[in-house]
Amino acid sequence: MVARTPEAFAKSGIEVRTKTEVVGIRPESGEVRLGDGSTLHFDHLVIATGAQARTLGVEGEELPGVFALRDLSDAMRIKAYLHDRNARRAVVIGSGFIGLELCEAFREQDMDVTLVNNHTLPMHRLGEEFGGRIIEELETHQILHLPETMAQAVDSASDGSLQVHTADSDILQTDIVIVAIGVVPEVALANSAGVRIGDTGAVATDDRMQTNLPSVYAAGDCCECRHRVSGKPVWVPLGDTANKQGRIAGINIGGGRAAFPGIIGSSCFKVFGLHVATTGLTEKEAGAAGFEPRATTIRGSSRPHYYPGARTFWLRLVSDRETGRVVGAQAVGYGGAVEHVNILAAAITAEMTVEDLAYADFAYAPPFGGAWDPIHIAAQKLTK
Amino acid sequence: MVARTPEAFAKSGIEVRTKTEVVGIRPESGEVRLGDGSTLHFDHLVIATGAQARTLGVEGEELPGVFALRDLSDAMRIKAYLHDRNARRAVVIGSGFIGLELCEAFREQDMDVTLVNNHTLPMHRLGEEFGGRIIEELETHQILHLPETMAQAVDSASDGSLQVHTADSDILQTDIVIVAIGVVPEVALANSAGVRIGDTGAVATDDRMQTNLPSVYAAGDCCECRHRVSGKPVWVPLGDTANKQGRIAGINIGGGRAAFPGIIGSSCFKVFGLHVATTGLTEKEAGAAGFEPRATTIRGSSRPHYYPGARTFWLRLVSDRETGRVVGAQAVGYGGAVEHVNILAAAITAEMTVEDLAYADFAYAPPFGGAWDPIHIAAQKLTK
Repeated sequence: MVARTPEAFAKSGIEVRTKTEVVGIRPESGEVRLGDGSTLHFDHLVIATGAQARTLGVEGEELPGVFALRDLSDAMRIKAYLHDRNARRAVVIGSGFIGLELCEAFREQDMDVTLVNNHTLPMHRLGEEFGGRIIEELETHQILHLPETMAQAVDSASDGSLQVHTADSDILQTDIVIVAIGVVPEVALANSAGVRIGDTGAVATDDRMQTNLPSVYAAGDCCECRHRVSGKPVWVPLGDTANKQGRIAGINIGGGRAAFPGIIGSSCFKVFGLHVATTGLTEKEAGAAGFEPRATTIRGSSRPHYYPGARTFWLRLVSDRETGRVVGAQAVGYGGAVEHVNILAAAITAEMTVEDLAYADFAYAPPFGGAWDPIHIAAQKLTK
Repeated sequence: MVARTPEAFAKSGIEVRTKTEVVGIRPESGEVRLGDGSTLHFDHLVIATGAQARTLGVEGEELPGVFALRDLSDAMRIKAYLHDRNARRAVVIGSGFIGLELCEAFREQDMDVTLVNNHTLPMHRLGEEFGGRIIEELETHQILHLPETMAQAVDSASDGSLQVHTADSDILQTDIVIVAIGVVPEVALANSAGVRIGDTGAVATDDRMQTNLPSVYAAGDCCECRHRVSGKPVWVPLGDTANKQGRIAGINIGGGRAAFPGIIGSSCFKVFGLHVATTGLTEKEAGAAGFEPRATTIRGSSRPHYYPGARTFWLRLVSDRETGRVVGAQAVGYGGAVEHVNILAAAITAEMTVEDLAYADFAYAPPFGGAWDPIHIAAQKLTK
């Protein structure tokens, strides 16, 4: 993908209006109202308003030096601030993947980093064992992890630095604060136009990405979609899903026929050397979705013991007791985690069972793994 | 897996007889005859006689310094020979994965290596494009690749070195010769006992690994098995398949019930920095198996262009035109090849279609790939 200017788009017959706000949609007349009072006509409209960073809602959040990281301009402002203030200390509030990636980014700049986590574990959805491995990785890299800690206010100290006050009355001295506590869908415009908002709080569409208003489509982080394992609408805003939804909307608007099949909740990230990946449901989520979950965790290696350079990972496989269907997988490790989760993403998409996987034929050679893959071993355990 | 001595096995109640040859099987009386004239009784017998290296059948093949590489003792003899003779030149005959791995191993010892290939391309099954990439990798590492070249005789030169005579009347001077032209199943014993040999030339079993003789099972490289895509019996002797067959035979003999589901022909290896992986059928094989194949090759990257450290790979996806079913995939590259082939191994096992894959939800983050995976792009191309 090459970044293109409005001029370059214009050559393709596409008019790009930068710094232009849509303040209202009139679906019945096929018009959008712009901030300057003018209107634009549409036959088809795509709402792709994305998501916004959640805010803490505490005093001092608007101070200079307190940032959210949502887009490229945020990143550039943070980078400029670090440079201008010669920032040496960072407080990161929030232990999702953005918060964890920022811990790594700041540490790579040799900064002192404190992670303020209102949960006990980072990426708490992944549970105690995997969350514990993330904590170990943070500690190895001198990140100060403060579990069960709420930020209650931010203020400026007399020397121009910032102070984060916690609910436990601790005061964290820092040069920069990042609030990375998740996102909320940006649906105000859609809502005001009569576009249906789903129970998740995001725009509801059908599998063609069409909203309840026939001329109005929606795509990307502002949309909910169907989870193919639980069958329920979910809101999991991620870049690859947004790409797919945009393409599907475009094909349908252009007169083609394409259906977005939904998601299975696959995602991954790395924090320092540790890779973390997940697909489908966790054991807890599987129970909530009406499955009777069974789960097992297998320690794997990117190579057999006799081959130098082996890297360890841990794979958790979740299946349904009655049907044997694979409903989820999570992995953390120093290699192999993402790769194994993506094999299982295919398996979950195809509704494979642990029996189907127990003796499945994967490409094997010692530079790439052992003759028995952790997927075989986990599936055999869950077959019994 | 820990190597165990006969004494260690004995403690588990397992008697291991080393240096003991079985010279005959009497299935009707449940006995095997040993080389020393004694007999052993069995209730269940497992034939796991493996495979033998194919020989060239040319003069001089028995000379010292001409080796096949089949097992650990071969490797140890080759290593000792290299050391004793201070070998600096190697001729490798055969361009399958063993031949290619040996090219790398010898080159790592700074030896001059010539690869004698009776085909035009190494790993000729993978076709021109991927074979060409393997040739490039060989050339980068100063391997002399001689395509369409037959070894016709080997003899000793007056200085004690070896000479390989080719059909084109070239003479290749060398210190060691490796014959790596494949293997043949070792079925003489099974055959003489009345065990049915399949059309592939290997032992035929059912999916419980039972032969036509109820008390006789077989497992490993001496066995054929069912290809799950073509539906036909095939002989693809590989270590991971052997492991699975052994386990299935053991479960059934022990009174359990387990079925070996067959293979889809997944395998991989590396030659220098190039990874090569395959699963299912090639386009040509798919045609021969009665499919109407479509195929496309996509250039992929282990990371998006803006993320440092990206490694290129090429993925070929093969589908059936009428049903859209994914019937094969091959990949070569400097990262990502094996990982992507294994995702597709799951897809092929589950009989997924290109439509199922076109918008499948894989775990994505920039350290691990792009938002559109080459699998998406290839599947979308084949969907049209």
